Amino acid sequence: MSRNADNKCLYERLYEEIKQDILHGRLADGARLPSKRAQAERLGISVVTVENAYAQLLAEGYIAARERSGYYVCAGELTQPEPEELPEEEYEAPAEPSPPTGSSMFPFSVWTRLMRTVILEKGNSLLSPVPPGGAPDLQQAISAHLKAFRGVNVPPHRIIVGAGTEYLNNLLVQLLGNNLTYAVEDPGYHKPARIYRLNGALCLPIGLDGQGIIADELYYKNVDVVHISPAHHFPTGIVMPISRRMELIKWAVRRNGYIIEDDYDSEFRWAGKPLPTMFGLDKTGRVIYMNTFSMTIAPSVRISYICLPTELYERWRERLGFCSCPVPAFEQYTLAKFISGGHFERHISRMRKNYRRVRELALQLAEKYCGRESVSEESAGLHFLLDISDGSPLHEIFRECGVKLSPLAEHYDEGSIVPADANGRFVVNYSSADINVLLKYKNA
Amino acid sequence: MSRNADNKCLYERLYEEIKQDILHGRLADGARLPSKRAQAERLGISVVTVENAYAQLLAEGYIAARERSGYYVCAGELTQPEPEELPEEEYEAPAEPSPPTGSSMFPFSVWTRLMRTVILEKGNSLLSPVPPGGAPDLQQAISAHLKAFRGVNVPPHRIIVGAGTEYLNNLLVQLLGNNLTYAVEDPGYHKPARIYRLNGALCLPIGLDGQGIIADELYYKNVDVVHISPAHHFPTGIVMPISRRMELIKWAVRRNGYIIEDDYDSEFRWAGKPLPTMFGLDKTGRVIYMNTFSMTIAPSVRISYICLPTELYERWRERLGFCSCPVPAFEQYTLAKFISGGHFERHISRMRKNYRRVRELALQLAEKYCGRESVSEESAGLHFLLDISDGSPLHEIFRECGVKLSPLAEHYDEGSIVPADANGRFVVNYSSADINVLLKYKNA
Repeated sequence: MSRNADNKCLYERLYEEIKQDILHGRLADGARLPSKRAQAERLGISVVTVENAYAQLLAEGYIAARERSGYYVCAGELTQPEPEELPEEEYEAPAEPSPPTGSSMFPFSVWTRLMRTVILEKGNSLLSPVPPGGAPDLQQAISAHLKAFRGVNVPPHRIIVGAGTEYLNNLLVQLLGNNLTYAVEDPGYHKPARIYRLNGALCLPIGLDGQGIIADELYYKNVDVVHISPAHHFPTGIVMPISRRMELIKWAVRRNGYIIEDDYDSEFRWAGKPLPTMFGLDKTGRVIYMNTFSMTIAPSVRISYICLPTELYERWRERLGFCSCPVPAFEQYTLAKFISGGHFERHISRMRKNYRRVRELALQLAEKYCGRESVSEESAGLHFLLDISDGSPLHEIFRECGVKLSPLAEHYDEGSIVPADANGRFVVNYSSADINVLLKYKNA
Repeated sequence: MSRNADNKCLYERLYEEIKQDILHGRLADGARLPSKRAQAERLGISVVTVENAYAQLLAEGYIAARERSGYYVCAGELTQPEPEELPEEEYEAPAEPSPPTGSSMFPFSVWTRLMRTVILEKGNSLLSPVPPGGAPDLQQAISAHLKAFRGVNVPPHRIIVGAGTEYLNNLLVQLLGNNLTYAVEDPGYHKPARIYRLNGALCLPIGLDGQGIIADELYYKNVDVVHISPAHHFPTGIVMPISRRMELIKWAVRRNGYIIEDDYDSEFRWAGKPLPTMFGLDKTGRVIYMNTFSMTIAPSVRISYICLPTELYERWRERLGFCSCPVPAFEQYTLAKFISGGHFERHISRMRKNYRRVRELALQLAEKYCGRESVSEESAGLHFLLDISDGSPLHEIFRECGVKLSPLAEHYDEGSIVPADANGRFVVNYSSADINVLLKYKNA
């Protein structure tokens, strides 16, 4: 079809006019259009122009051609139902993103240098899709990292890379089934439960005792899959002892159930060496390991992963192997280099050093204002618990320092009965604290 | 805790020995450990070393402390169930990725230049998370693109960016509910149906007539949500006429249902101008528009998007607004620049020009070997239909040219009855064809 400017303009105008006539009922259903030649003469334009307009109307189904007879309007179902009253559109423009606190520690220049290296080295192959489980470079780097720093032996192919933990929560429901009963720790981090429920699965909150989630309740409530953070529970800080870990593995074997081990902040431990993972402990194929780089690198790098036991890996291949890996190849190659070049470990240890100082300052202030006995569960992670009265000046001081306080009661599942001793107890999160303001108050 | 090399080595050895003794029952449940001083004297090591080992055993829950009494073994649940027989691990190493055909057209140097610009311009703010719907830069670029090239008016905030169409299929089930009845075109592209079913939703295959999916069947089968490609149906190539589009919108209004308009290859149309979208046509808030950059840019760039009508956008904010956007900020900024700088349109038009030549050559070969009347549905997309006998030499020729043939029957839903006239009919996909080999055969 010729696309020179004049012709295009004319044929489009003619097309548009006839279309509007049909849509507004000025040309009735079944009406015959003038022949191409007659139309061209009537309007003083070329036959080709009319041909183009008719062809477009024909392609869109506004008119139909009958052999040796001409073109007819097809307006059978063209009237549109009256729109319902839609609410007025409200919209808040999003704020310009500001760098997250803590990102000042991130070796951004190293990261961008690795980005450039990846562009040079990989070239055009950056455009190729990676395998469904993730880029082999990244799987290998994570495998080596887990072996060296978490004592976990998992072959690279059983590490499945995903676009954030929420993506992987979704994937796990699809892998295990949404007809199973899921369970989460209560109190706990709310998001996994929300995702399991969004997927149509039943998800129950399970209470804790001093050792973590209560195994008896898993039997009693017929749970199939339990999502836990044994290395460091949020927000209570409980580190699950080995006996409870074994009890849970025994539960999973008896029940044919699964344990999702969310190792999200195992990098931040302030006493002793990191605890071994349940994934490494388990010999029965019942534990799925999960971790993310959102906390340790940057929330804008959406990369997380799960390690699957052999049998589940086979099921993943069969059931979900047709899905594409959702993380861009470029990010995966850059992160692989960041890990295998040792930058990730150096970054973690820098963060650990920095957070250790922030933590000490925050603890000193907490003890000064509320007393030593009001502080608990401070041995790991980037938060601790604090009993603090409503009137304490520390509320305002922590706010100024960027230390966030949230009532412990808020971290219970909706509808759960919050125990009386949670009243007046707050979760103190110092991951975004400003060390200089903390220092100012310490020296005040 | 002191971490100098010797001490670390000693305390870890002691920790490991005691742990193994407990795990293997050589130290029984409830047994009392020697006091720290006694242990130190017995082994000829410092008390601090013993303290460190005990602290670690304590943290992991292998032992417990009783006040003024000492340390006791807690081995209550430490025996692990015997592992079931797990199948031997089989694993094929993934092939090194090769650049996809067609990627030679991609302006890779432009893309990498934009990547570098993004690194320089955005700096540290690349580490910040983008809002849940996507980076505003990208939402604005897509909004302007849709207005200019698809005649669609949609404000940027109602464009939700996702990590590939599969991710968005998942999101849509979570938004609309998995208790609804979904429907797909049969024959059709299999993936959406698989994803809807993975989410626990009922998904029915619905037959087509010459105008596309049959609206009566949607009423008859009580469908709530229908996923269609009105611009160009895969694999039959049907372009849905306006009357059927209106009929479907009427169905959606009566049923309180939704239409998912998958516009995946609207960029490739070989006659006339692109057909207007149903999303633009609809005044009733019943159509969701969906498109992807995997086909037009590269499969390794996992970016796709949906446009939501106002009411569904509000529901998305309430129900899914807590989920993070799964696409890395960096990719989103790069793509935003690629689109708003005009590179995307230039790339599309280069691809269109190239594919037009490939298409002509493939059609010429098809007509030469099978006759003009055996070719159908060739006016859009990167494939056409061909009636071809099993013995035709064209099978081998197309294979050599990188033109893929798949029996039409394969594109019907599992369990569907394939009509007799689909026998001997093939889908000819020329998206990965090698133009030079095609030319060789044309001139042969």
